Amino acid sequence: KSEEMAKLTQLIDNEVFRAYATYATIVLLKMMLMSLITAYFRITRKAFVNPEDTASFGKGESAKKYLRTDPDVERVRRGHLNDLENIVPFLGIGLLYALSGPELSTALLHFRIFTGARIAHTFAYLIPLPQPGRGLSWAVAYSVTISMAYKVLKMALYL
Amino acid sequence: KSEEMAKLTQLIDNEVFRAYATYATIVLLKMMLMSLITAYFRITRKAFVNPEDTASFGKGESAKKYLRTDPDVERVRRGHLNDLENIVPFLGIGLLYALSGPELSTALLHFRIFTGARIAHTFAYLIPLPQPGRGLSWAVAYSVTISMAYKVLKMALYL
Amino acid sequence: KSEEMAKLTQLIDNEVFRAYATYATIVLLKMMLMSLITAYFRITRKAFVNPEDTASFGKGESAKKYLRTDPDVERVRRGHLNDLENIVPFLGIGLLYALSGPELSTALLHFRIFTGARIAHTFAYLIPLPQPGRGLSWAVAYSVTISMAYKVLKMALYL
Repeated sequence: KSEEMAKLTQLIDNEVFRAYATYATIVLLKMMLMSLITAYFRITRKAFVNPEDTASFGKGESAKKYLRTDPDVERVRRGHLNDLENIVPFLGIGLLYALSGPELSTALLHFRIFTGARIAHTFAYLIPLPQPGRGLSWAVAYSVTISMAYKVLKMALYL
Repeated sequence: KSEEMAKLTQLIDNEVFRAYATYATIVLLKMMLMSLITAYFRITRKAFVNPEDTASFGKGESAKKYLRTDPDVERVRRGHLNDLENIVPFLGIGLLYALSGPELSTALLHFRIFTGARIAHTFAYLIPLPQPGRGLSWAVAYSVTISMAYKVLKMALYL
Repeated sequence: KSEEMAKLTQLIDNEVFRAYATYATIVLLKMMLMSLITAYFRITRKAFVNPEDTASFGKGESAKKYLRTDPDVERVRRGHLNDLENIVPFLGIGLLYALSGPELSTALLHFRIFTGARIAHTFAYLIPLPQPGRGLSWAVAYSVTISMAYKVLKMALYL
């Protein structure tokens, strides 16, 4: 048993894999933060979607007026969905890329640019910055994922 | 070749990894169930979003009235999206956590509480239970993921 | 270090794992394509959701009219969300399935049918094809994921 565990630990000891683990965790924590920001705006803007969430504001019509959409809440939700759409491919393709034996420096470059671009994307979405701020940060992270996908298919292609 | 396969099988023989595989699969099956529940409510409430889905109800105006939103359908869809937002981080961070060499008992505690909390969250959303039922179950699963992320970063940090 | 790297490279040398890496990457690239199709329809239909995205069309009321929903944009977005709901389970369960030591031919069958069905689903959604085209392609991919989940739980169950 401890021999098997040792083999697993070797995976986490590999520097490329450790770099992937680090940046994947950071970018997932960033995505999870969107839930807290949504909750913050829902509470401060008093804009809810589930009737049971407004029960503490009273009954009937007085609570019903808080069942509404708010531009700030919707903006955070769009940023959250965009995270899902882009971070899910990074998680999957990035893991396979990390296992495909890339150079450590190249791998770090990919992971750092992706993570930086997605953090920039969140700021661009929430402030919001004028375009093409958000578009560019999106495109940079997207391109990094495509680059990793190319390497994975080059190394592993088995149709 | 069979030697390589043996090494892979060792991964699935590791108890922490088997526990991760089990709970990740259960929680993903639970998430997939949301698709069936959405379909069930769309059909029983006759509330569709794509014109081609209402073609069997006739043509023109008679079918058009079924292109509408329904509170029950929207509720299941919100639960499904909340699953995506929370189960994706669990999948990624949980995998890295399982590979970071945690104690089996600690790992099982994390996986079991997360899975139980997400199942409770689904019931709280669909029944629906009064708050803070849904909020608490969400927060418990969220905290478990944060705890695993902390362990991963402590073990693997490589920036 | 190079010994560890060798062990990792063995994973990517395993044929079942290479098949998983190939099809997971293809299906993720297909999902990423939905972002580009959404952007294409937003620009050609002039239908945006963020005020900062319409700034290049002028200021005030002249730009405001482009903040609207468009049926084609919404259709692509629904296809994208359906991808997320179905490809995330495939990524997680498929990875665990690939590590559970399946026959290469059986694994290839699962990965190929899933990938083909999801590509068919996208065409069925975007053209759109009359039902049950979209429903069937969805059900086929869903069933493949259930089949892999069954194999994972049979091999790895550890509650």
